[in-house]
Amino acid sequence: MTASAPQPAALALYTDSSPNGFKITIALAELGLPYQLHHVRIEHAEHRLPAFLALNPHGRIPVLVDRDTGVTVFESAAILLYLAEKTGRLLPADPQQRWAAVTWLLFHAASMGPLLGQRVHFEIAEGGANGAAAAHFRQLSDAALATLDGRLARSPYLAGDAYSVADIASFGWLHIARIVGFDLAAWPHVQAWHARVAARPAVRLGVTIPAPATGA
Amino acid sequence: MTASAPQPAALALYTDSSPNGFKITIALAELGLPYQLHHVRIEHAEHRLPAFLALNPHGRIPVLVDRDTGVTVFESAAILLYLAEKTGRLLPADPQQRWAAVTWLLFHAASMGPLLGQRVHFEIAEGGANGAAAAHFRQLSDAALATLDGRLARSPYLAGDAYSVADIASFGWLHIARIVGFDLAAWPHVQAWHARVAARPAVRLGVTIPAPATGA
Repeated sequence: MTASAPQPAALALYTDSSPNGFKITIALAELGLPYQLHHVRIEHAEHRLPAFLALNPHGRIPVLVDRDTGVTVFESAAILLYLAEKTGRLLPADPQQRWAAVTWLLFHAASMGPLLGQRVHFEIAEGGANGAAAAHFRQLSDAALATLDGRLARSPYLAGDAYSVADIASFGWLHIARIVGFDLAAWPHVQAWHARVAARPAVRLGVTIPAPATGA
Repeated sequence: MTASAPQPAALALYTDSSPNGFKITIALAELGLPYQLHHVRIEHAEHRLPAFLALNPHGRIPVLVDRDTGVTVFESAAILLYLAEKTGRLLPADPQQRWAAVTWLLFHAASMGPLLGQRVHFEIAEGGANGAAAAHFRQLSDAALATLDGRLARSPYLAGDAYSVADIASFGWLHIARIVGFDLAAWPHVQAWHARVAARPAVRLGVTIPAPATGA
């Protein structure tokens, strides 16, 4: 996305091929914004280097730097809100749908995402050796998925009729959950929504960045 | 707060005496907004009643309903953003400080809060019976506290000079963490900030609502 830009892009994205990273590569593709891509290779511990910790002292990708405003933002949901405010897009204008989008964005950021992350940790990374912890997070994340399914039974997207930052955030994680083998069959509305979102060109592009992509 | 209001308040808050609930009772006190208080007694499973699930299908407090706009918001960080936008307060106007506030609000909502919640679950509620899981969340939440301490070494509040929704969100959980026995001595800047925030009249009031208060 950067190669063809005649001027240095105002936006710089520090990311790796990961659930939280995809939320931003998808959003930037959806918005058609040029940006400089900085690949932070977590497997090489580049997220622990001083230059990166100066951007996010917690040492997590993604981080967005906007040279036009001097703003640095980390936490993927905060970056999505920043991009929505910068462009006036991906958040509906209608107050009820707008706050539905923010509510479901935060439902993902504070509930679904952390639960899926811990479920992947205990089920996949630790291989289920801690059975009680794996069961704990399976139960909690299944309950969150049931909540999501109930919402998507009532509207095509999380905020209502309009695709928003809430869908992008939720997709980033569920995309990876499917890749590592989570079965979404129990949640048909989540499955249908996942297919609808996955078909968007910006989503198909976003999950390939940065290469080599774990998510393509 | 409601008894003296001559007209029904536009805002209705559904909450219980808990870390996430305090974020909103503190913010509403800070903003001086009247509201109708609905005590959702989790110990009586009132958060699983159909009338409450119609407000938040995930069955969690707090929930805010604004009759002036027809907006219903859940997830405490989303409610804080709603109140900040409604009033033009608790988020700095300067873009860099404004997005620092949103970033640290999300750091709390997506990282610190869920980690402290799981730490309380495995250390306190389960009494440390699952030692590996307790150690996992102790390590992760300690790392998040170290990040917070580094930030508060550089500015009195999380967004910089101004007290914001980021401080309110972080305080809500750390207040309870202290009550259940977490020792913050390793993080002197967090401790000093905690004392600074705890001294605010709105904070002292907020942690007593709803009565009987676990947090007073």
